[in-house]
Amino acid sequence: MSDILIARRELAFQLYEMQNVESLCDRERFAEHSRETFDSVIDIAEQIARDKLVEHNRLADEQEPQFDGERVSMRDEVKVAFDTIAEAGFLAGRDDYDDGGMQLPETVMSACMSLFTAANPSTSGYPFLTMAAARLIRNFASENLRQQFFPHMLTGRFTGTMALTEPHAGSSLADIRTKAVPAEDGSYRIKGNKVYISAGDHELSDNIVHLVLAKIEGAPAGVKGISLFLVPKFLLDENGNPATRNDVALAGLFHKLGYRGTTSTALNFGEKGECVGYLIGEPHYGLKYMFQMMNEARLGVGMGAAAIGYRGYQHSLEYARERPQGRLVTNPSPESEPVPIIEHADVKRMLLAQKAYTEGALALCFYGARLIDDSDTGEGKVKEEAHLLLDLLTPILKAWPSEYGPKANDLAIQVFGGAGYTREYPVEQCWRDNRLNPIHEGTNGIQSLDLLGRKLWQHNGQGLQLLHKEISSTMAGAHSDFAEWVKKLGDVMGSIVKVTMGIGGKIQKAPEQSLANSHAYLNLLGHTVIAWQWLKQANIARAMMDGDISEEETAFYQGKIQAAQYFFVWELPLVDRDIQVLMSFDQTCLDMENSWF
Amino acid sequence: MSDILIARRELAFQLYEMQNVESLCDRERFAEHSRETFDSVIDIAEQIARDKLVEHNRLADEQEPQFDGERVSMRDEVKVAFDTIAEAGFLAGRDDYDDGGMQLPETVMSACMSLFTAANPSTSGYPFLTMAAARLIRNFASENLRQQFFPHMLTGRFTGTMALTEPHAGSSLADIRTKAVPAEDGSYRIKGNKVYISAGDHELSDNIVHLVLAKIEGAPAGVKGISLFLVPKFLLDENGNPATRNDVALAGLFHKLGYRGTTSTALNFGEKGECVGYLIGEPHYGLKYMFQMMNEARLGVGMGAAAIGYRGYQHSLEYARERPQGRLVTNPSPESEPVPIIEHADVKRMLLAQKAYTEGALALCFYGARLIDDSDTGEGKVKEEAHLLLDLLTPILKAWPSEYGPKANDLAIQVFGGAGYTREYPVEQCWRDNRLNPIHEGTNGIQSLDLLGRKLWQHNGQGLQLLHKEISSTMAGAHSDFAEWVKKLGDVMGSIVKVTMGIGGKIQKAPEQSLANSHAYLNLLGHTVIAWQWLKQANIARAMMDGDISEEETAFYQGKIQAAQYFFVWELPLVDRDIQVLMSFDQTCLDMENSWF
Repeated sequence: MSDILIARRELAFQLYEMQNVESLCDRERFAEHSRETFDSVIDIAEQIARDKLVEHNRLADEQEPQFDGERVSMRDEVKVAFDTIAEAGFLAGRDDYDDGGMQLPETVMSACMSLFTAANPSTSGYPFLTMAAARLIRNFASENLRQQFFPHMLTGRFTGTMALTEPHAGSSLADIRTKAVPAEDGSYRIKGNKVYISAGDHELSDNIVHLVLAKIEGAPAGVKGISLFLVPKFLLDENGNPATRNDVALAGLFHKLGYRGTTSTALNFGEKGECVGYLIGEPHYGLKYMFQMMNEARLGVGMGAAAIGYRGYQHSLEYARERPQGRLVTNPSPESEPVPIIEHADVKRMLLAQKAYTEGALALCFYGARLIDDSDTGEGKVKEEAHLLLDLLTPILKAWPSEYGPKANDLAIQVFGGAGYTREYPVEQCWRDNRLNPIHEGTNGIQSLDLLGRKLWQHNGQGLQLLHKEISSTMAGAHSDFAEWVKKLGDVMGSIVKVTMGIGGKIQKAPEQSLANSHAYLNLLGHTVIAWQWLKQANIARAMMDGDISEEETAFYQGKIQAAQYFFVWELPLVDRDIQVLMSFDQTCLDMENSWF
Repeated sequence: MSDILIARRELAFQLYEMQNVESLCDRERFAEHSRETFDSVIDIAEQIARDKLVEHNRLADEQEPQFDGERVSMRDEVKVAFDTIAEAGFLAGRDDYDDGGMQLPETVMSACMSLFTAANPSTSGYPFLTMAAARLIRNFASENLRQQFFPHMLTGRFTGTMALTEPHAGSSLADIRTKAVPAEDGSYRIKGNKVYISAGDHELSDNIVHLVLAKIEGAPAGVKGISLFLVPKFLLDENGNPATRNDVALAGLFHKLGYRGTTSTALNFGEKGECVGYLIGEPHYGLKYMFQMMNEARLGVGMGAAAIGYRGYQHSLEYARERPQGRLVTNPSPESEPVPIIEHADVKRMLLAQKAYTEGALALCFYGARLIDDSDTGEGKVKEEAHLLLDLLTPILKAWPSEYGPKANDLAIQVFGGAGYTREYPVEQCWRDNRLNPIHEGTNGIQSLDLLGRKLWQHNGQGLQLLHKEISSTMAGAHSDFAEWVKKLGDVMGSIVKVTMGIGGKIQKAPEQSLANSHAYLNLLGHTVIAWQWLKQANIARAMMDGDISEEETAFYQGKIQAAQYFFVWELPLVDRDIQVLMSFDQTCLDMENSWF
């Protein structure tokens, strides 16, 4: 089986050649870091991924967590892996030295997480969610609350969840019904039901810290009445240790088609009326807090989808190299030896498409991670522009990799042929695991509405203008070999501007008609951004090839250029359909009536 | 849960309005039939599907067949269902009255099979394979062999398999190593290993009849040395009853991601040197016989993929109608009631795409079934033309539904949101089951090479010319409302002709370059044929709407027109990419080198 999780050469390319991560060390926060410290952290992450995560990836899929009505049990390797990740300091990887953290940039942490997820998506879910919840507490909870919970989440003694979704409301958070009633001691009593809560119950940690969206009695209707509460599984005693069981009950586990090792739970809060919750920040600002950490969570989903996609690509690549079958059309004689299937043009196509999707997605995600770094620790214009771009691109960072990562996994199965659809081989699990990513953390339909209905128009549309400038600058610096690609990308960008202005002029008067084809817009802008990332990768590769480099390095860069060519020839032209649909304000979908189905 | 397998209104539309199946009753073979007899057979099929197949579809997925080293066991419902289908006469549905058959046309049998597959793909696999094997025996086996086995396969007492694939050779049948040595009694001794043999072992029947591809000692290399053998699990005694166990051993079961109820087996023939096989037809003609029944088997896979796709569409449609969530952008107030998600434009898009894919695929498959009927029982030019079209279109009949059926299932999951990826809801199983269809019965890559490397050029390219004529005739008769679609379809057909001539002029000199983008050609011709089928459907709908019809009927036809519009606006333009790639003989994939990945 392939030994490659995410190729280190690829990570080095994305971090140091594409994102110039070493330059971050000029900033005070990262002053003690260097490429060497970054690489050793990534070494440790890779080692953990290989030693503690890969082996039980299939086992945790086959033997998913069980709930006997009392306890949730799962394979022991999950706790071993979680503890190892925690002990190595990864849960606090981004945090301050003062908090016991490593003060690593997001880019470097993303590289580590990509290795964990490639090795074992479902076990990686536990640290991922704990880090996300801890950051929310750090940023918005009172000092008192922060002291009680945050340090224990950095060590993995406590784990975290995000409890948003309710059975009747799904993605429509405006309609949540979970209630919070103030108690005399300043805490609240929470009552309501949540579903699809990942990592909502297990015995990996001493305590589980649920971050729960709920409405305080008398709050305004809709999203403006949502508050955020910290609801621990165990209430703490005076020494800060988990003591009394809080009134949070596991109603049951969902049985998913993928990520089966991560428990997906239905939780009942306050069945006995005794569920204690602590308000985080101000009342009614819950969704705002939640959204402020969404950028990172959504980037995390995108990166996970890219990593699973990439892992499947590596498996199918190895299989294609080793599996002899059939002959080339130029030498069909049955007396000759069969060739490895990687020699067949259509197999090359399937591998090249996977490469273009997954390395394109990785490039996008590392670019997103760099934007987070610049937005967090950059200064002046760098910070401001990073914030603008990140805001605009977040729906794409989540949705594009989660659309095309699964497509890559689908192609990986196809390369394996009959072996691909058996559970004796690894790619079908990649495909199943990745199927969650277009849905959780905001479905891609929600992402498309967020982009076209909101993100595009924020800050007077400066985000798109800035993106346009950035893309134009890459185009201006492109090697002359790529002139055709530059022309196509320029044409598409021109169309995007036209389409966007058209919609902008109409969205107030006719919002339904303007937003009806949000999916096409997301796809159009997403593909364009990925084409841009491929042009960047090809430019770097082309420049390096002029130097004196090894045969192996030449092959690496040649592969980048060929994958870029694939994207420009086979993928980017597909957006012409989206442009047509958007330009004409096509109403085919909107006009469809319920009774006509 | 949705009660709809394949909507009867849809089946009636495809059979009687699109394919004019009643006209077949003018032919001698079907003279005793009428729309009434056809409908009653379909009624029975639907009843069996509902009573015996639907309920254990999920159960057979959860509790797949087990092999304890001796016996294969599976849920009892599978045998009950198989026996019911057999007793109702469906295994002999297409066969002569004299053989106890029903002499039904392929079109009508396809409708019945679509209901079975929609209800339970994996249990339907057993009758499907038995019928396919029986037809091969009927057509090519000696009278003696035929008498011994064929009648029992029509009653379901014996079941059948097709044993082609070997572990080292996969799709490359030229390289099979299974050997056949003549014995003194005129039979052969078979020795070799086969994998992925569906229904290769079970206890549903008294005997299993394997149709095995093998090479007689001293046969020419490659496909020209392949012979076809009948290898029963039990040898028959003098009374024709299964008696002695033949030397066919089950080495193990494969564990698939879908169709889990259909055993997928590794079989060892002749481990003890005592495996008896009987030659079917002439030596070295095995592959030819196999290919002569491929048309029907490949159509069967296409129909299955369409049926599973359609079933997922119906589930998601029902969910979208019943699930309230969110509000329209025109009435966003949180005080208002949430709307069913079918009201959201992007959900309509996902449902409309499913409708366009699955009803497009059904239209294609029923057209293919009608071509089989015309090829089998038509006369003169009708027969000849049907044969030409069927030959050309077989790769598309298999590949297009098996590409787009799974895409529909993917969208069905997306409509369900978080519920979609749980095994508590039915659509994830549809999606898993359907994932086998692009691979088995010849991968879609093989189909694309078969189309571009062989089918297109057979009979001096008359197939494509005839298809062009047929499409042009539909265009000429199209309603003026559809003028834009007709124009686009005409343009695409023009490009297909140009592309094909270009390739035709180059294929001898540069076969590798000419065939490198076979996938694009398959997709181009496939989408064009589906667009044609949608134009046909829209034409019929438009004509019916001029008449005096009920509100319900109007809605049905309106839906057909809207889905056709979806296909012409959202799907057909995507082939412009394929045209560009093919027209320019793009070599991106072919040029990619192994070391660059």
